[in-house]
Amino acid sequence: MEVGKSVPRVDAYNKVTGRALFIEDYMPAGALVARVLHSEVAHGIVKSVEVSGALSIPGVLRIFTCFDVPEKAHATGAGVWDPGHMPVADRRLLNTKVRFVGDDVAAVVAQDEISAARGIRAIKVTYEELPAVFTTDEAMAPGAPVIHDERPDNIVDHTAMGFGDYDDAVLSGGLTFYEGSYKMPGALHGHIETASAGAYMENGRVVVITGNQTIFSLQRIIADVLGLPWSMVRVVKPYVGGSFGNRQDALYEPLAAYLTTQMGGRPVWVKITQEETMRCTRSRHDIRIDLKSGFDADGRLMTSSIDAYSNQGGYASQGHNIVSNAAGVIKQLYPPARGYKIEAWTIYTNRIVAGALRGYGCAQGIFSAECFMDDIARARGEDPCGFRLKNIAPRDFKDPKAGEIFRSSELAACIENGKDLIGWDKKRAGYASQSGPIRRGVGMAVCCYKSSAFPVMPETSIARVVLGQDGMITLFFGAIESGQGTETVLTQMAADAIGVPVTMMRLGGVQDTDTHPYDNGSFGSRQTYTSGSAVKQAGLLLREKILDRAGTIDGGQGAAGITGGVIVDGAGKRLLDIADIARSSLFSYGGREQLVAEATFCAGNNPYSTAACFAEIEVDIPLGKIRIIDIVNIHDSGVIINPKTAESQVRGGMGMSIGSALMEQLIFDEKGALRNNNMLDYKIPTAMDLPDMRVEFADSYEPTGPYGNKSLGEPPALIPVAAIRNALLHATGVAVNDLPLSPERLVERFRDAGLYDSRGTDPIDRGVSACSI
Amino acid sequence: MEVGKSVPRVDAYNKVTGRALFIEDYMPAGALVARVLHSEVAHGIVKSVEVSGALSIPGVLRIFTCFDVPEKAHATGAGVWDPGHMPVADRRLLNTKVRFVGDDVAAVVAQDEISAARGIRAIKVTYEELPAVFTTDEAMAPGAPVIHDERPDNIVDHTAMGFGDYDDAVLSGGLTFYEGSYKMPGALHGHIETASAGAYMENGRVVVITGNQTIFSLQRIIADVLGLPWSMVRVVKPYVGGSFGNRQDALYEPLAAYLTTQMGGRPVWVKITQEETMRCTRSRHDIRIDLKSGFDADGRLMTSSIDAYSNQGGYASQGHNIVSNAAGVIKQLYPPARGYKIEAWTIYTNRIVAGALRGYGCAQGIFSAECFMDDIARARGEDPCGFRLKNIAPRDFKDPKAGEIFRSSELAACIENGKDLIGWDKKRAGYASQSGPIRRGVGMAVCCYKSSAFPVMPETSIARVVLGQDGMITLFFGAIESGQGTETVLTQMAADAIGVPVTMMRLGGVQDTDTHPYDNGSFGSRQTYTSGSAVKQAGLLLREKILDRAGTIDGGQGAAGITGGVIVDGAGKRLLDIADIARSSLFSYGGREQLVAEATFCAGNNPYSTAACFAEIEVDIPLGKIRIIDIVNIHDSGVIINPKTAESQVRGGMGMSIGSALMEQLIFDEKGALRNNNMLDYKIPTAMDLPDMRVEFADSYEPTGPYGNKSLGEPPALIPVAAIRNALLHATGVAVNDLPLSPERLVERFRDAGLYDSRGTDPIDRGVSACSI
Repeated sequence: MEVGKSVPRVDAYNKVTGRALFIEDYMPAGALVARVLHSEVAHGIVKSVEVSGALSIPGVLRIFTCFDVPEKAHATGAGVWDPGHMPVADRRLLNTKVRFVGDDVAAVVAQDEISAARGIRAIKVTYEELPAVFTTDEAMAPGAPVIHDERPDNIVDHTAMGFGDYDDAVLSGGLTFYEGSYKMPGALHGHIETASAGAYMENGRVVVITGNQTIFSLQRIIADVLGLPWSMVRVVKPYVGGSFGNRQDALYEPLAAYLTTQMGGRPVWVKITQEETMRCTRSRHDIRIDLKSGFDADGRLMTSSIDAYSNQGGYASQGHNIVSNAAGVIKQLYPPARGYKIEAWTIYTNRIVAGALRGYGCAQGIFSAECFMDDIARARGEDPCGFRLKNIAPRDFKDPKAGEIFRSSELAACIENGKDLIGWDKKRAGYASQSGPIRRGVGMAVCCYKSSAFPVMPETSIARVVLGQDGMITLFFGAIESGQGTETVLTQMAADAIGVPVTMMRLGGVQDTDTHPYDNGSFGSRQTYTSGSAVKQAGLLLREKILDRAGTIDGGQGAAGITGGVIVDGAGKRLLDIADIARSSLFSYGGREQLVAEATFCAGNNPYSTAACFAEIEVDIPLGKIRIIDIVNIHDSGVIINPKTAESQVRGGMGMSIGSALMEQLIFDEKGALRNNNMLDYKIPTAMDLPDMRVEFADSYEPTGPYGNKSLGEPPALIPVAAIRNALLHATGVAVNDLPLSPERLVERFRDAGLYDSRGTDPIDRGVSACSI
Repeated sequence: MEVGKSVPRVDAYNKVTGRALFIEDYMPAGALVARVLHSEVAHGIVKSVEVSGALSIPGVLRIFTCFDVPEKAHATGAGVWDPGHMPVADRRLLNTKVRFVGDDVAAVVAQDEISAARGIRAIKVTYEELPAVFTTDEAMAPGAPVIHDERPDNIVDHTAMGFGDYDDAVLSGGLTFYEGSYKMPGALHGHIETASAGAYMENGRVVVITGNQTIFSLQRIIADVLGLPWSMVRVVKPYVGGSFGNRQDALYEPLAAYLTTQMGGRPVWVKITQEETMRCTRSRHDIRIDLKSGFDADGRLMTSSIDAYSNQGGYASQGHNIVSNAAGVIKQLYPPARGYKIEAWTIYTNRIVAGALRGYGCAQGIFSAECFMDDIARARGEDPCGFRLKNIAPRDFKDPKAGEIFRSSELAACIENGKDLIGWDKKRAGYASQSGPIRRGVGMAVCCYKSSAFPVMPETSIARVVLGQDGMITLFFGAIESGQGTETVLTQMAADAIGVPVTMMRLGGVQDTDTHPYDNGSFGSRQTYTSGSAVKQAGLLLREKILDRAGTIDGGQGAAGITGGVIVDGAGKRLLDIADIARSSLFSYGGREQLVAEATFCAGNNPYSTAACFAEIEVDIPLGKIRIIDIVNIHDSGVIINPKTAESQVRGGMGMSIGSALMEQLIFDEKGALRNNNMLDYKIPTAMDLPDMRVEFADSYEPTGPYGNKSLGEPPALIPVAAIRNALLHATGVAVNDLPLSPERLVERFRDAGLYDSRGTDPIDRGVSACSI
């Protein structure tokens, strides 16, 4: 069994020794360098772009302005081809109307980076400035400036949906209602590799080198921008230095592709700095969710009303899907017995563009839900764990509308386990009545998360395994290794299915639309589930072909299985090596055939993973500072394919969520420019900032998963933030409904809550005030 | 029908516009440059290599000498894996014993080419010189210096084979015997691209970029040199600027691979100049063939004795196969009725190494056979055409020993056609008795050539076709485009089999051992036959899959065929586009599956192509100069897949053969160094040197070929040289049995033949002397 083992990542050695190749390593020698000039106004019309000074700089070859590029607008969000649900096409390669500070206005192509940078500085742009709006409230106000003419009300999209007898339940009385409003603000992905992209023409076709997560979708987007058949574009994806959803959009790939076509096919490297990556690409949606729920006398959830307002920034990106996910996950985690209604709004503003970021809206939805549930439990005087256990979707929950089934939910077990691990009951009681400047609290949060995008889109993954000349087996998949370990777990699965050790597996080079089979890509925590299913099927097929061939050659009669890379008979006796089969298949004088197997997996299910986080914190009330004493995530993700990489995955997600909880924030100036657009000023937690994060996995088996597994990629990032916020509530009685829980915010809230004495800093020693929601 | 049309080469536009990418275009930016230091002595022991001066040159990073590299010797010749027939492993990456002027002694790795070149110049090598031998006679003489200790007699290999009652026939009397000795000297491939190769490490594996013709074989060679499993090496082959057999050997690829492993995986570009390519890689074997044949009273060939002596140079390369081919083709073209015996010798000398060169020995064998047959016809007073028609293998000839069948031979028709085209009968008569300084003659020659290496090796070709997102079809094959047009004809075949125009086909990037299916490679004029068969099978399979799927989707019921890229019903009415099928297969909510088909062709036959060349020349006797007035090749190659590219293929071959006839020669100094090691001094014919070459194809159908086709790549280069030599014989009565027919050689022979007056330059006006053989 290669599945279930903590085999080292297949890319570990190369990554730690610096031998792994990234985008720049694939750019041919002599590549031209392009730099992009960005808008300095949040909203305006480009009146003129003066390029003559820039063109006179040695090394500057050509300048493309917003007046030069194709008129037709294009979309950037990944997806499948679905004429009924095409993403919003609202941006051009370079824009004559600019919609946020950082919008793309011109590009300089030069012999080298320095000339390109000098060229950028020498361009003079004249804008007609328009009034800008930065919040959804401003943008939805009557008479607000119009950001896109096609959406005169600034509403990208609006969903109103409901189920059951919500209105009846509300009117019929007998329920206790609670309401609250929570806001998870924008954030950055904080990946280390920049959003640079390269392109060149190869024999008349356009080749794009990028760290994109959805190469087959990107292939279509770029081809459409260039007006080419899709197959005239090839997308190649080397190793990726982080993406976290930012590269689920087309970023600078279409521009790179366009520029090479304009430069006679020469390689063009669109060099995007870290600062540009942070201020010009995508961010997490700032989403406010207003919740109102009715409970029966036993505290059982009967109705929910969920109104979500998502700040999209200047362009639609993934469009409305994210806020829909944010709102939808709440009723999935806590299905109201009698009905719900949801309204979700995605609103253009003149902020930086928002897109996918680990959780695809669920981070915001779960944050709101889990603050809300804790606030209600507190208001009702119930234990937060008990209150949740009463209201979460039960193990075999079948969504009455969507029909998805929680076939394998172990969320209740996760909660029980978390309680033990954190010492819940004792600490809840022990910290109930604290005074003084330093106080402690324990909090928790839970989540659920799907294992793909089915049935929102048809979910397809294809894998191919090829027996090579030497008996090693090469695995091809179009699924994307973006740092999360896909290559490793899919290699384990293929090895397991075939019956060989992972050391007999090779990977078919970097993912490439030309040479790799189709896959929807890396998003929705889908790959181990959907791509894994394809890999397993292909592996089993190849195993069969190897055994069939073994039966036809000398010494292979009676071949009944493959174990540890050796072909054995029914009694387990070694008959042949796989290398014998490989050589026979290619070099014998009998019939020859490359032994290859390909399998397509079409998801017909979409199981939910669940998880719980428990956190114990210490709050320094005078300093407004939170210290995490203990934190543990307990995940129900079915069978864990590789415990070591799974733990890393969880810790990475917890770190992101802790960053959201304590430090990450976007700081804009009054003109709408992102001020902390760099890794020094935008604070993501480093190893020094993070506590020892504990990780546990529930004993769980998902019957539809290839190896009993389901999603794990995104869930870890959904829960620590609310667990910490709820621990703060426990410690101080102060419910903070927005983020981050930074000292400046906490001091203000503590002051509002009357925790300080008359000087405003020393804590008043008294009982915690009641929570008002 | 896409087959049989003169569609433009699929690489035409990119090649003429300079957009086609070659090896150097694939080298990553910042690649290190290696240059190689070569031996200046023909035979010797390297006593010391002084590198300190070179190491002090700025930019020089490391120097590898023959004392640093792995001890184990390796082979360089391509082939399949066959433990019973492994090529001779007789060289190391750098050699402490040097065996020709140009042998590899050390390599300098530097930041850039100039530093590397300076480094090379600064290295001081001390040799212990050994006596050298340059001819097979010298090397076979008793007491000759030993070149390889493993072959103390300098004999790489020796074949003695026979068939039938040769000895009886000789002894029984009644036959008329003729004998002759002919020698086709060494030559260079003269390809424009050099033998440079690049390598880098990608995620722990070694990637080699090269213009090699047999990438799956090269993969094994390199891995064996490095001591790695084969699959740890990846070979990528961009477009190739000529190869002609030179790249059927591993040249500098193993060194490039080794150097990158020593430089921490950094890209290393082993830069080989044109001069080094010419003096250090491979050349055509200098082969002398001694022939003796017995004829019955009707002039029918009864017995042949064939003794061939091949000058291998310093290393074994393709080993003994080439001289075996040279000797064997003679008895195949003219099968003696009662028997034959063959002895063939491959002999190490201290000349540059010989390897494959368009014809793989058959150029030498056919030259000898066709001089011999003309000489005999002349001696017997028979017409050369009639004499050949009487003795060539008949149409349905079955080799009594090997069993190969000439199923489709139209050689007799080629001869008849050629006679008409050149005006044979009239000119043979008209030029019979000339005098004066300018004389004319017509000559002819014929050949046969196989369509693969079967049954010498198992012949395997695999093709894959993939229906992409947009309905375009990508074709993958491991067969090698090396300039000969493989990509174009295989694309035509795939398009034809599927039922789409070639414009709906794409190629799956450059040939690559990682991503492309196995194929034995480009040699033996095999690809259109073997790889074409795989392509056709794969295409038909995909067609079936497309039609099956069409039947399951709206509007596709009744799908019965694919014509011009459109799915039609039984009546030819358009039902769906292929793009509809593609989108359904990947994006519908029903079952999805990437439509892909793969097929393996295992050759079970090896049909012979045949051809005739007719040439009319004018000889300037005082100047010793030949002018070609008219020349025509008539080929029996089965159905012609692409008449335009086929004609180009033939003209290219004719040009090479005319070069061999009139100008190409290797000039060595007394120390064994090649003096004309550059394109200025080594004369290959340019367009200005070549006559208008006529090309005709016989109406022919090979039943075992995928589209009735058989080989065409090499045959064109086999016959003009002998046709010209025979026309010279006709014009002057002088039989020249070695090459080239250069003015200096001709003047000497004309003088020997008494064609000049006492001053030795003006021709004597008299009848032509009888030919003595």
